[in-house]
Amino acid sequence: MFVPCKIVEEKLKLILAEDLGLGDITASTVIPPNLQVKAEVIAKENGVAAGIEEATILAEALGLTVKAQVNDGEGIKNKQVLMQIVGDAQTILAAERTLLNLLSRMCGIATQTRMLTDQLQKANAKAKIASTRKSAPGLLYFDKKAVTIGGGDPHRLHLDDMVLIKDNHIAIVGNVEEAIRKAKSKASFAKKIEVEVTTTEDALKAAQAGADIVMLDNFSPQKAKATSEALAKAGFGRVLLEVSGGITSKNLLEYAAAQVDVISMGELTHSVKALDISLEIIKDR
Amino acid sequence: MFVPCKIVEEKLKLILAEDLGLGDITASTVIPPNLQVKAEVIAKENGVAAGIEEATILAEALGLTVKAQVNDGEGIKNKQVLMQIVGDAQTILAAERTLLNLLSRMCGIATQTRMLTDQLQKANAKAKIASTRKSAPGLLYFDKKAVTIGGGDPHRLHLDDMVLIKDNHIAIVGNVEEAIRKAKSKASFAKKIEVEVTTTEDALKAAQAGADIVMLDNFSPQKAKATSEALAKAGFGRVLLEVSGGITSKNLLEYAAAQVDVISMGELTHSVKALDISLEIIKDR
Amino acid sequence: MFVPCKIVEEKLKLILAEDLGLGDITASTVIPPNLQVKAEVIAKENGVAAGIEEATILAEALGLTVKAQVNDGEGIKNKQVLMQIVGDAQTILAAERTLLNLLSRMCGIATQTRMLTDQLQKANAKAKIASTRKSAPGLLYFDKKAVTIGGGDPHRLHLDDMVLIKDNHIAIVGNVEEAIRKAKSKASFAKKIEVEVTTTEDALKAAQAGADIVMLDNFSPQKAKATSEALAKAGFGRVLLEVSGGITSKNLLEYAAAQVDVISMGELTHSVKALDISLEIIKDR
Amino acid sequence: MFVPCKIVEEKLKLILAEDLGLGDITASTVIPPNLQVKAEVIAKENGVAAGIEEATILAEALGLTVKAQVNDGEGIKNKQVLMQIVGDAQTILAAERTLLNLLSRMCGIATQTRMLTDQLQKANAKAKIASTRKSAPGLLYFDKKAVTIGGGDPHRLHLDDMVLIKDNHIAIVGNVEEAIRKAKSKASFAKKIEVEVTTTEDALKAAQAGADIVMLDNFSPQKAKATSEALAKAGFGRVLLEVSGGITSKNLLEYAAAQVDVISMGELTHSVKALDISLEIIKDR
Amino acid sequence: MFVPCKIVEEKLKLILAEDLGLGDITASTVIPPNLQVKAEVIAKENGVAAGIEEATILAEALGLTVKAQVNDGEGIKNKQVLMQIVGDAQTILAAERTLLNLLSRMCGIATQTRMLTDQLQKANAKAKIASTRKSAPGLLYFDKKAVTIGGGDPHRLHLDDMVLIKDNHIAIVGNVEEAIRKAKSKASFAKKIEVEVTTTEDALKAAQAGADIVMLDNFSPQKAKATSEALAKAGFGRVLLEVSGGITSKNLLEYAAAQVDVISMGELTHSVKALDISLEIIKDR
Amino acid sequence: MFVPCKIVEEKLKLILAEDLGLGDITASTVIPPNLQVKAEVIAKENGVAAGIEEATILAEALGLTVKAQVNDGEGIKNKQVLMQIVGDAQTILAAERTLLNLLSRMCGIATQTRMLTDQLQKANAKAKIASTRKSAPGLLYFDKKAVTIGGGDPHRLHLDDMVLIKDNHIAIVGNVEEAIRKAKSKASFAKKIEVEVTTTEDALKAAQAGADIVMLDNFSPQKAKATSEALAKAGFGRVLLEVSGGITSKNLLEYAAAQVDVISMGELTHSVKALDISLEIIKDR
Repeated sequence: MFVPCKIVEEKLKLILAEDLGLGDITASTVIPPNLQVKAEVIAKENGVAAGIEEATILAEALGLTVKAQVNDGEGIKNKQVLMQIVGDAQTILAAERTLLNLLSRMCGIATQTRMLTDQLQKANAKAKIASTRKSAPGLLYFDKKAVTIGGGDPHRLHLDDMVLIKDNHIAIVGNVEEAIRKAKSKASFAKKIEVEVTTTEDALKAAQAGADIVMLDNFSPQKAKATSEALAKAGFGRVLLEVSGGITSKNLLEYAAAQVDVISMGELTHSVKALDISLEIIKDR
Repeated sequence: MFVPCKIVEEKLKLILAEDLGLGDITASTVIPPNLQVKAEVIAKENGVAAGIEEATILAEALGLTVKAQVNDGEGIKNKQVLMQIVGDAQTILAAERTLLNLLSRMCGIATQTRMLTDQLQKANAKAKIASTRKSAPGLLYFDKKAVTIGGGDPHRLHLDDMVLIKDNHIAIVGNVEEAIRKAKSKASFAKKIEVEVTTTEDALKAAQAGADIVMLDNFSPQKAKATSEALAKAGFGRVLLEVSGGITSKNLLEYAAAQVDVISMGELTHSVKALDISLEIIKDR
Repeated sequence: MFVPCKIVEEKLKLILAEDLGLGDITASTVIPPNLQVKAEVIAKENGVAAGIEEATILAEALGLTVKAQVNDGEGIKNKQVLMQIVGDAQTILAAERTLLNLLSRMCGIATQTRMLTDQLQKANAKAKIASTRKSAPGLLYFDKKAVTIGGGDPHRLHLDDMVLIKDNHIAIVGNVEEAIRKAKSKASFAKKIEVEVTTTEDALKAAQAGADIVMLDNFSPQKAKATSEALAKAGFGRVLLEVSGGITSKNLLEYAAAQVDVISMGELTHSVKALDISLEIIKDR
Repeated sequence: MFVPCKIVEEKLKLILAEDLGLGDITASTVIPPNLQVKAEVIAKENGVAAGIEEATILAEALGLTVKAQVNDGEGIKNKQVLMQIVGDAQTILAAERTLLNLLSRMCGIATQTRMLTDQLQKANAKAKIASTRKSAPGLLYFDKKAVTIGGGDPHRLHLDDMVLIKDNHIAIVGNVEEAIRKAKSKASFAKKIEVEVTTTEDALKAAQAGADIVMLDNFSPQKAKATSEALAKAGFGRVLLEVSGGITSKNLLEYAAAQVDVISMGELTHSVKALDISLEIIKDR
Repeated sequence: MFVPCKIVEEKLKLILAEDLGLGDITASTVIPPNLQVKAEVIAKENGVAAGIEEATILAEALGLTVKAQVNDGEGIKNKQVLMQIVGDAQTILAAERTLLNLLSRMCGIATQTRMLTDQLQKANAKAKIASTRKSAPGLLYFDKKAVTIGGGDPHRLHLDDMVLIKDNHIAIVGNVEEAIRKAKSKASFAKKIEVEVTTTEDALKAAQAGADIVMLDNFSPQKAKATSEALAKAGFGRVLLEVSGGITSKNLLEYAAAQVDVISMGELTHSVKALDISLEIIKDR
Repeated sequence: MFVPCKIVEEKLKLILAEDLGLGDITASTVIPPNLQVKAEVIAKENGVAAGIEEATILAEALGLTVKAQVNDGEGIKNKQVLMQIVGDAQTILAAERTLLNLLSRMCGIATQTRMLTDQLQKANAKAKIASTRKSAPGLLYFDKKAVTIGGGDPHRLHLDDMVLIKDNHIAIVGNVEEAIRKAKSKASFAKKIEVEVTTTEDALKAAQAGADIVMLDNFSPQKAKATSEALAKAGFGRVLLEVSGGITSKNLLEYAAAQVDVISMGELTHSVKALDISLEIIKDR
């Protein structure tokens, strides 16, 4: 998900513009123009850095000078200075909230992802944590990037990059095999095909029909394990297994023990807990 | 915050376009074109409806027929059908996730806001719950609207609609009175002036200097109460009092008891818990 | 109304793009590429500088070097050089008209505003000159900014920043008090509420109902004065008074004498007289 | 300058969006949703209708029903109803100012253009009134269209549709002949070539060099007449003659008497006097 | 690649807007407004229909009534009527060229793709024809869709939907295995990994390292065949083989005989031969 | 067709953004961040350079350093290095295809145009090669510019810059003279008027009615010559003659011999043969 700075900048300017409306009337009335100040972006709790790159792009696009004190993906501690920003006071204050909103959401996502990823690693599980497309509206790029920074798998980025046959598709087509057959005959060779199933039987049918990935929807850890074993036994060891639905940090390792490859969790991006981060103007620069 | 449908539609189409990329390859390969189906949007937990209007605008903009079964602001129950959508199957499936992301975020915000608002109402508190500008990046319109639907006050919508002098402004200007003086001399008569303070003394100075609203930043309920009383005693009863920082559903009523007018909480919009909502294709229509 | 340069730049590039179409065919056919020249932006009449900042942002965004010789808000004399621009000749010529249209409109607005503001100051009137939303379509930012530079009050910037109940709202709601009551119960605490009235009686009712600002619509100076006195007598001295409609530079001081706070004039922005400004290429640089 | 409605609609929605910001808070708090009302757009002074088409496109795009009572280009009288609009009250009120700003500017331009055009027609002059590119920033389409509706000639629409060699081009190239020579050798056969000159001698040189149109810049009527005669005598009767600079409604006919083809006036679009137009909600519909 | 009509419409309006500039001056001066006419879109040579859907979306978006006489993907004959369009004459004429440009390019791509696909089918080859990202700038959506309609495989849609390691990536990373190793460790499970190789040896290494697809760059048919056999012999029969470079309709079957899976050809989209199609106004409707 | 770099940059960023989707996943997974490399853009066949300016603008906009080794319009040889680019490896690779698509299309157009232009020059023909509006959708700017670079005439740039009455206009209006009469009475003096005719008789009528340019549609060289002579004989020597339809590099000189002024060919832009150009990363820099 590499996007050149200048293209990310365009997205960021649109976000800032929404917050500006016709302009920051506090900065314009209270703060003198052309006053150079220094600001620090400071963590108010522990977590994982994410969005440092985007915050830097935004600040630099506005003519500010930035020294990032941490890289995306690194751990951060409460009270740690994440970035130093020097430049025009009105500009810093007008961009402060947009910048912090970006950072605190992306750090929040990365922090939660890392916490889950670490659990899996400590348990030597092969499974990866993955996000879904359940992001905040319009924020797929930022949310998926934060998941990646936190060590998670972004999963399907959007609707054009993998065939993912879900319950509603199957409801229309009639059954799993027919849906896969259609996908295989019409989809590009460049795409993987994933199918969501609700029974072990359908998981077997999906593998048989040629799905690259089978998603077990709302399976218990036990049922997931049984399905995983049934697939292996039937000779479908190459098929990737994903579990989704009902997974929490509490039962994560039980799912991991089911020998699945991917554990996807919507809450990573739909119910983000923002990391507390603030910006402080430093008087003497 | 009334925006004509057609203008909201433009925002929504941009959000959908991000998810589409070059197109939904699952719908195009698995689902037949021009197949009319019926779908239901169903709540998976209790909450407050919000975003029904936006979801309807999006679906109708795409040529789908919508029957909303609930109005924004009404309570919703687990398993309740929120909307019925009839139309082209590929279109419904391509828009499903965007529509649900919108609804689940807005309902989540409204539900949490309503829960807090209800607490205050039961306690007969005069205080209102308010949001901040700590939204997800670029989602001020949707987030603020959801807060309003939940019975909260949207607070300052963006940077052009109230002078809000915060710690960083004061750090630059030097002191509260000078900041207010500047704001009053330069800001439009159409704008209110709010100041964030960290001491009771500064609250008094702010009121004296003519602030319309004083925000008590990270005050304990006790300190907030003392400040409220000090202001009343000094004859500044007309000044609105806002508390912000460290407020949770647990201590909410303690703050309310401090006779403040506004209780603002960033987490209403920066740490949203999405309401669980799904869309199901109904076979027979 | 502070907007960071980079965001203003986006607006300005769109304006330039309209004028360019597929490109400047005079510059491309008559002027050699990569020729460095110097140009001067010169006033052809007296007035007040405005738009110097925007013109500079546009020129610099195009890679030109600008030395502004005057700041926004300063008086300018016929034949005075306002800006020196050095850079690629084709670029300067392609941007010339956009740059001058911006400057001449903004200077025209600021000049007219200053003339009226000066009248009031000489008369020691407390009233401020304010603009309305009667701008040229799409030019609220530039028009409001020019009014501010000229010493006027921008008034409501757009539809989201103050409740302004006008004749048509009242026609629907039924009466002034009911309209104010609704606004007070539903609008954010962050917003002021202004009401337009056509009689002294309604002005009193509006103040009684809690309006922050009362706008006297098409009142004669005498009637405005009587209303002002009636309000004061009734103890509504805190309520701001605005007059609008039928005000000209001729009768301005009569209105000011009515002890109003705000005198708003649509023609400041809907019937602008552009200041005459030209750009001249200087041969030897 | 025919543009299909749907494309004009895009321009109009952007203009409305600027005014809306995050939404009309007066309509949302004071006016009930889904209330059908009727409104009339009424002239407050005599003039020429223009912008009726654009106002209709905007209103219809927002779901309102419009009955135009007058066509663009027709004369309108004080108190005349120009349009009837029926539909959602909040929508009408949110769009009112944008709609009126558009109409009052376009009617203002058309009215002034017609007044000048009528003068020429009464005098049986062959000359046409033309506008320049001195419009309000970004409003070339609307301003040029209004000029056309008023009976004027839009002149060059923007930088890609005619070669127009002006003083600054000549200052760089060295002289009139060389500039024309370059233009003729490099410009498309599809383009006319016009040159601005300051002396009769240069007018002759321009005609000799093959200019299609010669613009006499700031010539007195006498000098314009002498130049016109000199050109005719020299056998350049086919070359169109334009005068520009210093022309007012007072001396218009003197210029017309100079046998020029085009009289262009920047003030038609840079110093517009808006026509007074208002919108009134009609209670009983 | 299913995109809802309304989203495609946005792309199409931008394309039309470029052609319109400030408006169609031929339609506005020569054609009466509000004149209903009928038009036929007619093929001037044999081929395959593509873009009928997009042309219909554009025409309907402009308020025209369309009857498509052929579906995308069907064969068309010289003189065959492809679409009937009824509506406003100025609108039809203003959109004519944009509509035909779209159709003639998309039909051209589909026709050429079908011709090649038919060759393969007649030879009972398993290989599919695929396009590349060598499209006209900005036209990935339309070009890829036309390829699909012609029976080709769209291949990677854009940079976010498959890992495709090419010569330049390998030049930086050092060798094929290392590049694949990096991709496999960092890329999402949702993505396939393809590698471009220039020798049989590297093809084997790529398969060994776990590539899903190996692209043989500029291999002769003989070398492709040898590589295909070497891979099969080494037990990498599951790996997809793509050939690219130097392939023409002349040697296509030789490559197909090499038992490759995908034959990709840049010229399908970078060197399109437009199908000749015209629009004719029919007098009597 | 001069457009300042910064405005062209906006068009180019949109094109790149389509290709990026949510980001280049090959660059992000395989290539290390912040690695400086050098790349060369190399021709793989002979031709004419075009798009070097646009490619440079794009690369520089992305923060890359470019040394163009050839200017637009110059001949290029197989294996010639056209540009050297130094900078971040991920950025170069993410932009590679967009940059090459731009160059190879523009060079392809310029090469073909130059080949035809050279034929005419060698034959000392007065006729110019011109393009039409039959470009790839949305690429008028790039396609017209490439034609110009190749020595061709861009012809009408888009719908607002010349009145061009075609068969469909005449079908509606009734006859050639009436169409011209309308155009002359309503079109701006700034525009030329061209008419498409299918008979010598209509060509004479068009000239008589005052057309500036007459386009002979699908005339044989003989018929074109006869018409040219008939016009000259009738005293319409000033009228420009254009031929269009059925012209190829084979019969080009026959048309030129007909003494026409303009030979326009749609295939210059609708059926472009891209020039083969590649980008190679150079290891040691």
